[in-house]
Amino acid sequence: MKAESGYNRTENKKRERTYQAKTDRGEATRQKLLLAAEEVFGEKGFHGASIVEITLKAGVAQGTFYLYFPSKETIFEELVRELNHDLRREISVGVSGAKNRQEAEERGFQIFFAFIKEHRNLYRIVQEIQFVDEELYKWYYSKFAEGYIEGLEKAMAAGEYRYLDPETVAYAMIGVAEFLGMRWVLWQKEDIPPKALSAALELIMGGVLPRQ
Amino acid sequence: MKAESGYNRTENKKRERTYQAKTDRGEATRQKLLLAAEEVFGEKGFHGASIVEITLKAGVAQGTFYLYFPSKETIFEELVRELNHDLRREISVGVSGAKNRQEAEERGFQIFFAFIKEHRNLYRIVQEIQFVDEELYKWYYSKFAEGYIEGLEKAMAAGEYRYLDPETVAYAMIGVAEFLGMRWVLWQKEDIPPKALSAALELIMGGVLPRQ
Repeated sequence: MKAESGYNRTENKKRERTYQAKTDRGEATRQKLLLAAEEVFGEKGFHGASIVEITLKAGVAQGTFYLYFPSKETIFEELVRELNHDLRREISVGVSGAKNRQEAEERGFQIFFAFIKEHRNLYRIVQEIQFVDEELYKWYYSKFAEGYIEGLEKAMAAGEYRYLDPETVAYAMIGVAEFLGMRWVLWQKEDIPPKALSAALELIMGGVLPRQ
Repeated sequence: MKAESGYNRTENKKRERTYQAKTDRGEATRQKLLLAAEEVFGEKGFHGASIVEITLKAGVAQGTFYLYFPSKETIFEELVRELNHDLRREISVGVSGAKNRQEAEERGFQIFFAFIKEHRNLYRIVQEIQFVDEELYKWYYSKFAEGYIEGLEKAMAAGEYRYLDPETVAYAMIGVAEFLGMRWVLWQKEDIPPKALSAALELIMGGVLPRQ
């Protein structure tokens, strides 16, 4: 894999470490700061956001912030990591009981749209990453692609899906989800309409199911 | 259509007006400024870019800038409009001779990937629009979607494609193109590999062609 590759596995590993606080109370404060950061970064953008505003919104003394995060960059990175982790976990739990890959795909899409509805600021935050930390931006999407590729490879090996380059299918599907979420959940501030969800699923299943 | 709708047609119409200079020489200067702006915005981002740097790169006196654009915001908007217009025109010319919709789809994708290779800064610029002017961001994608929807409706009416909500298909396809372009052309700094292009086209055609 070349140096300018899409992502860097060592980098990914480094980013996997968790920064959990040592006590429950500490963890609660850390979560309060992350929640406030999600709001402030989402509304003001990275450059417009300030640590003062984050601590005010979290109801935490400014000095306390630095017990958890050395800088605005660090809390931004942690927030991105947590949102990525939470969304992947929700999808993984949600699709685990699906009776086949088609049902898993459907549930995965629904969970994604429900998640971004609850975390409207996610789009702004994710798209701003590239202007703050480009490697983190690549990491964000390649983390999703990794899990997706695994699921696709299994479905292809089992003959549930026809064989198409799995990485291409993974990025294509992520693109579909992101753009439909943007069009309806973000712009229209409403749930994705049933006709759009069903059209998207028919489109995808037509693309990946074996030819009759 | 609600007020918070995806885009606003009146706004779109307003944005359609052209700001062409009155003389050929004036138009050449304007184009030099836009070309320099594309580089500077792409490298520095909107906030990091300065009018001084744009005029230096264009080899134009600073005062001249204001004969063409009243502000940094204006040249940014003009640049976005021109890139959008040029890309749509290239696709439209490129697909006009296609013998069927499938060939048109294939050419459209190839032209899109070739265009972003020539305009690498396009991604950064487009994704930064939402932090500068959110309506312009919606306009950028809805302009593409409009043309795509028209083509899809024709193909569906002619029975070339099966019927699936055309707006959903349009945004889904734009998402596929953007994410594959991001993964390879932008991150990998190379052409999209033939296996990815063919997988994407098979995926899409499987999704849109009538069921056998």
